[in-house]
Amino acid sequence: MKLFDVYPLYNVTPVKAQGAYVWDNKGDKYLDLYGGHGVISIGHTHPTYKAALENQLSNIGFYSNAIQNPLQQELADKLGELSGCGEDYALFLCSSGAEANENAIKVASFYNQKSRVIAFKNGFHGRTSGAVSITDNPKIIAPINAHNPVTILPLNDIELVKAEIAKGDVSSVIVEPIQGVGGLDMPTTEFLQAVRKITQENNVCLILDEVQSGYGRSGKFFAHQHHGVKADIIPMAKGMGNGFPIGGVLIANHIEPWYGMLGTTFGGSHLACAAGIAVLDVMKQENIMQNVADVNAYFQEQVKDLPGLKQVKGQGLMLGLEFNYEVGELRKKLIYDYKIFTGGANNKNLLRILPPLNVTKADIDVFVEALKELL
Amino acid sequence: MKLFDVYPLYNVTPVKAQGAYVWDNKGDKYLDLYGGHGVISIGHTHPTYKAALENQLSNIGFYSNAIQNPLQQELADKLGELSGCGEDYALFLCSSGAEANENAIKVASFYNQKSRVIAFKNGFHGRTSGAVSITDNPKIIAPINAHNPVTILPLNDIELVKAEIAKGDVSSVIVEPIQGVGGLDMPTTEFLQAVRKITQENNVCLILDEVQSGYGRSGKFFAHQHHGVKADIIPMAKGMGNGFPIGGVLIANHIEPWYGMLGTTFGGSHLACAAGIAVLDVMKQENIMQNVADVNAYFQEQVKDLPGLKQVKGQGLMLGLEFNYEVGELRKKLIYDYKIFTGGANNKNLLRILPPLNVTKADIDVFVEALKELL
Repeated sequence: MKLFDVYPLYNVTPVKAQGAYVWDNKGDKYLDLYGGHGVISIGHTHPTYKAALENQLSNIGFYSNAIQNPLQQELADKLGELSGCGEDYALFLCSSGAEANENAIKVASFYNQKSRVIAFKNGFHGRTSGAVSITDNPKIIAPINAHNPVTILPLNDIELVKAEIAKGDVSSVIVEPIQGVGGLDMPTTEFLQAVRKITQENNVCLILDEVQSGYGRSGKFFAHQHHGVKADIIPMAKGMGNGFPIGGVLIANHIEPWYGMLGTTFGGSHLACAAGIAVLDVMKQENIMQNVADVNAYFQEQVKDLPGLKQVKGQGLMLGLEFNYEVGELRKKLIYDYKIFTGGANNKNLLRILPPLNVTKADIDVFVEALKELL
Repeated sequence: MKLFDVYPLYNVTPVKAQGAYVWDNKGDKYLDLYGGHGVISIGHTHPTYKAALENQLSNIGFYSNAIQNPLQQELADKLGELSGCGEDYALFLCSSGAEANENAIKVASFYNQKSRVIAFKNGFHGRTSGAVSITDNPKIIAPINAHNPVTILPLNDIELVKAEIAKGDVSSVIVEPIQGVGGLDMPTTEFLQAVRKITQENNVCLILDEVQSGYGRSGKFFAHQHHGVKADIIPMAKGMGNGFPIGGVLIANHIEPWYGMLGTTFGGSHLACAAGIAVLDVMKQENIMQNVADVNAYFQEQVKDLPGLKQVKGQGLMLGLEFNYEVGELRKKLIYDYKIFTGGANNKNLLRILPPLNVTKADIDVFVEALKELL
């Protein structure tokens, strides 16, 4: 049977991975500065992670959410502690970033019984009907996905947000604290704080989409924590399972659950929780958020004089190198000639850097040397 | 941090599982005739499955869909062979049943550029916006999920389907070949064949939702194969990974893909494929579909004289015992007094039976003995 051919593929076949490195089927070694869209958080094939999954597989991998599963509580407790959100939120587990965002807009809608979502230009929130309807990319929105009441506004224009909220039908405002595929644009602190104020005053839920920017990637546990704001709902996914399909939503205490309100078959399984707990354990043991801050500082210093570099966007290890020209060819040379994975974005001039969060300064040196030769 | 309290839980804490049995934290052993909503296909902690996941974890667990991953092709080939669908369909991989159904209605909508979906009374298709909008349960549909054009019809009334399709705006008809949580009702062969004919004549996609009924559960690979019809799109998930979060969609060859049409971050990862391949290998090696047919015949024979039993619904090992009274108390006694997991349904008189597909006749004896004592 064929695969449904929707992905343009690089001609590289990874068969082994360790830390920030990937090996292909020819034995060639690649530096992974992309982590499969920011998914690899604690490094490929981390021994603690691998041991935790193997141990869980030997006991019980899955049962439904009809029974007690103390691993969910352990995950919630460790997540609460490391994120600093423990007292203010409750955790719901699911299996992907799209599902996390779907649950977020649904929880908001159940809460205030409204529908309309305000989202932002260049935003991406996933592929399922609700998630794609609030994504700013008409090409990937099928007719069936185009019925939700959604308003896409430019980032950082608070007056436009206020005008929409004044209409009284807005359920939630969803913002990525750092845009991913859109191209690493960020809301300003002033804007986020103003959005927080106006949403609070109007019983509108503020959803801060941390699917890509969360789990330490920005140098803080959640990227919005750089801005001194608190969300009503925080969807998360990519770094959460270091490649295991797991997503989650933090839901502020003033939003009350009821039996049957949300549901999932796969979410919160024993094996998913084991992956999620191992990620949090390693993040704490290896002080990964400090490494993100340190490597970011080093990276900024090393790249600042690169020829043709317009700016470095993003925070922590969610970075975009914006050049004065399109980077498609540069990415190909990096992967085929220098064996370095990087990412692209809607902004064709932007090289996206999303390495494992325990990447080293020496790894960054390899990348910067390659760029110096290429530019 | 608290868990968002949306699940009523049985007071049982499984910590170990093997085959059709689960052990709790007190060492009590339970017969699992439910498999966490029909997820456990080849039995808990199957040695082939466990070894495949461990081996894959040692090599590479995850990379994105931007690179070559031959495991996806291996999964597609084995799925094509075992299902008999290899020549007519292409495979898209995702992470859950809801995502599979979202992709199904999206593919249909891209294909015929229409929106409206015809679904059926008591149907369940998932929790994300699109999937829940076509689910017949207003309680779990938030305002934001209620904007899609959807028409819910009674099962098996072909004239009503024809009348809706005649309006010209229908994109797809979605049917579960055996309803799950709805209560094991089934479309008749005559109805399915008539729906196939009318959809084909009107360029409407027929989606046969095999999320729960697929992967051998009915005794054939797909439950709709009992009816001599072919779907345009076949979503699947639960049995596919034996507890690993994986879903997929089979898409008929006349529907053409284009780059970017669908997408997923987690779907089709190396570890997900390893789980999916192990399930197919075990199904083939252990001739699991034959076991389903054999155990079904045995089950039907053993339960037929149970007092108060109105009928046995469903096929294969996707069964519902319908009694003349509500079964909530019976389920509690089965789990707490007899250590047997069973499931409930929207139909309160129905006991749902979804065991691992390699359950034995001896396991069925244990269940029937318990029922004989209880009834």
